[in-house]
Amino acid sequence: MAAAIKIVAISGSIRKASNNTGLIRAAIELSKSVVEGVEIENVDISNLPLLNTDLEKGGTYPAEIEAFRQKIVAADAFLFASPEYNYSLSAPLKNAIDWASRPPNVWAGKPAAIVSVGGGHGGAKSHYHLRQVGVFLDIHFINKPEFFLNAFQPPAKFNSDGDLIDEAAKNNLKAILLSLKAFTLKLQGKN
Amino acid sequence: MAAAIKIVAISGSIRKASNNTGLIRAAIELSKSVVEGVEIENVDISNLPLLNTDLEKGGTYPAEIEAFRQKIVAADAFLFASPEYNYSLSAPLKNAIDWASRPPNVWAGKPAAIVSVGGGHGGAKSHYHLRQVGVFLDIHFINKPEFFLNAFQPPAKFNSDGDLIDEAAKNNLKAILLSLKAFTLKLQGKN
Amino acid sequence: MAAAIKIVAISGSIRKASNNTGLIRAAIELSKSVVEGVEIENVDISNLPLLNTDLEKGGTYPAEIEAFRQKIVAADAFLFASPEYNYSLSAPLKNAIDWASRPPNVWAGKPAAIVSVGGGHGGAKSHYHLRQVGVFLDIHFINKPEFFLNAFQPPAKFNSDGDLIDEAAKNNLKAILLSLKAFTLKLQGKN
Amino acid sequence: MAAAIKIVAISGSIRKASNNTGLIRAAIELSKSVVEGVEIENVDISNLPLLNTDLEKGGTYPAEIEAFRQKIVAADAFLFASPEYNYSLSAPLKNAIDWASRPPNVWAGKPAAIVSVGGGHGGAKSHYHLRQVGVFLDIHFINKPEFFLNAFQPPAKFNSDGDLIDEAAKNNLKAILLSLKAFTLKLQGKN
Repeated sequence: MAAAIKIVAISGSIRKASNNTGLIRAAIELSKSVVEGVEIENVDISNLPLLNTDLEKGGTYPAEIEAFRQKIVAADAFLFASPEYNYSLSAPLKNAIDWASRPPNVWAGKPAAIVSVGGGHGGAKSHYHLRQVGVFLDIHFINKPEFFLNAFQPPAKFNSDGDLIDEAAKNNLKAILLSLKAFTLKLQGKN
Repeated sequence: MAAAIKIVAISGSIRKASNNTGLIRAAIELSKSVVEGVEIENVDISNLPLLNTDLEKGGTYPAEIEAFRQKIVAADAFLFASPEYNYSLSAPLKNAIDWASRPPNVWAGKPAAIVSVGGGHGGAKSHYHLRQVGVFLDIHFINKPEFFLNAFQPPAKFNSDGDLIDEAAKNNLKAILLSLKAFTLKLQGKN
Repeated sequence: MAAAIKIVAISGSIRKASNNTGLIRAAIELSKSVVEGVEIENVDISNLPLLNTDLEKGGTYPAEIEAFRQKIVAADAFLFASPEYNYSLSAPLKNAIDWASRPPNVWAGKPAAIVSVGGGHGGAKSHYHLRQVGVFLDIHFINKPEFFLNAFQPPAKFNSDGDLIDEAAKNNLKAILLSLKAFTLKLQGKN
Repeated sequence: MAAAIKIVAISGSIRKASNNTGLIRAAIELSKSVVEGVEIENVDISNLPLLNTDLEKGGTYPAEIEAFRQKIVAADAFLFASPEYNYSLSAPLKNAIDWASRPPNVWAGKPAAIVSVGGGHGGAKSHYHLRQVGVFLDIHFINKPEFFLNAFQPPAKFNSDGDLIDEAAKNNLKAILLSLKAFTLKLQGKN
């Protein structure tokens, strides 16, 4: 039996009741039920200092940065829950991405998928900025499907605990995980 | 012996002396000498009418569109020579891309690389718009290396026939072809 | 009494029944009724050849290009109806823009607004590519409001003639025209 | 005599020896010598916490956020020194921008300019992401000139203190300030 694909999930929103983080919890649930062969770990980025290379002393990173980087090193693939703030990426997400890009860039060569929830277009504009970032970092994003969820239109997509309760959205999220899994296996030469 | 990978190359500049088209000629030369296992065909797009879906009659495309679409169908991978006009794609290139995206989208699932030559940043801004287009079309672009050539700085990069004469640029172009070949094989499950 | 502001409107879709062109017709109606002080002319771009600088002979442009350029020269401001094709600008629109950017760039220093209609996010992604184009061309876009119309959701936004029939959309379009008018006067030093 | 235009300058790099911050120091020098009628204040953003709306208690912001927001409120215009990290904005800059966008958005309606220094294309890709952010925030960026400085090519552009020593770059920076001043006066109806 093949080892499960290790997916590191990162939410770009660090507030407690974040719907974007709720998407990651929903993805984890799916990985324990209907999506076989993937393990998803939600990695918190709220404790990382603002990027400042003066914090790199003697070629080493602060402990919390190093711990974060080791999570990225160990991952087979990434799931970004990327809220759109002012038509671009959230600062916490960009901050985490930039820290792990410091030499050696530990994102390189791995696949990823993006999901988001918001008003309006559901966070879509953050995706295309993140994809541009991925060109430099050598992240291979799946193209299809894309996942943007407008949570400001009825019916409610999340309950009061911030958990995803919309079945259509869960199915779309499942499709993301299956696509990411298949693309990861392909890039690993295992298909 | 494995069949060669068929690469369709498209230049977004349709003027005769285009340096971008010169990059494609240089790529073809490389495919006949130092880059084994790839065949590159330069497909002209200058005769395609401006996109107008009124030209689609009874579910069929005009003859020149249909011929272009068949070239895309038969390709394993794509090489776009994408000049930057006013910080975005050239209209001839976008026009060709859009025609081949009409149902069924014949770009889907295939890999591609982008090269460009220009002043300033060598056409780079066109790349990121093209990559965003590729998300919708399900084109998988190589991330690395990237190829932008500033031809406005001495020494001359092209001769008076518009042929690439710069050895460093030729080496960079070779690296693009090798990366595209490797990525194509990977996506085809042949690595 | 002040002369009316001359707005040149351009639709990036050249098919007959285009909803985007329908937005321009609706804007013209508004300019003849509730929006005072603006005149809008719809300028057709379907007859322009694909951009090819080989067509520039002895420093002159082909007649249809020159005629188009003169329309731009005479305008105080621009209204782009910019459909989103494959996550970017339509080729006909980019083609027209590029022809009028040839030396001397006749767009420079003038204000503009963008409207669009489509499925999904209503054409929004075309706006941000067009805005990037505008940086190089020195077009000053209004920031607010933005206008994207999803015409694929009920109720119908257009009648069978392609005329806008949705009152909320008409009000949003009116707000675009008022914002463009105010910004034009400000940039002309007339506020 | 007219009051000077108050420009708030923000560097997206928070390391001590930042060249981007060096551009701001150079701009301040110019404002005290050859560029009349502008006052530039460098506002530090290194102490702002990562954006987390849980920190907004009872409709108020943490003290350091509130102090930063008051700087933005008092400004007539903005000068962003925007380094490019991984083909997009730096996290510290995006973080500061997002905090000042929280209700009420205190950027709205004001003009701005962007400068950057880096390798490669000198930070250019950060500009276009920042400009897209500005659409939502209603920031009016000058179009021309643009300022990207490649500091990785000889001769040295900065001395060992991180001060700009390149005369051509200083002249380009002066042109930015004059353009921003003129655009600010125009938008304020004072031209």
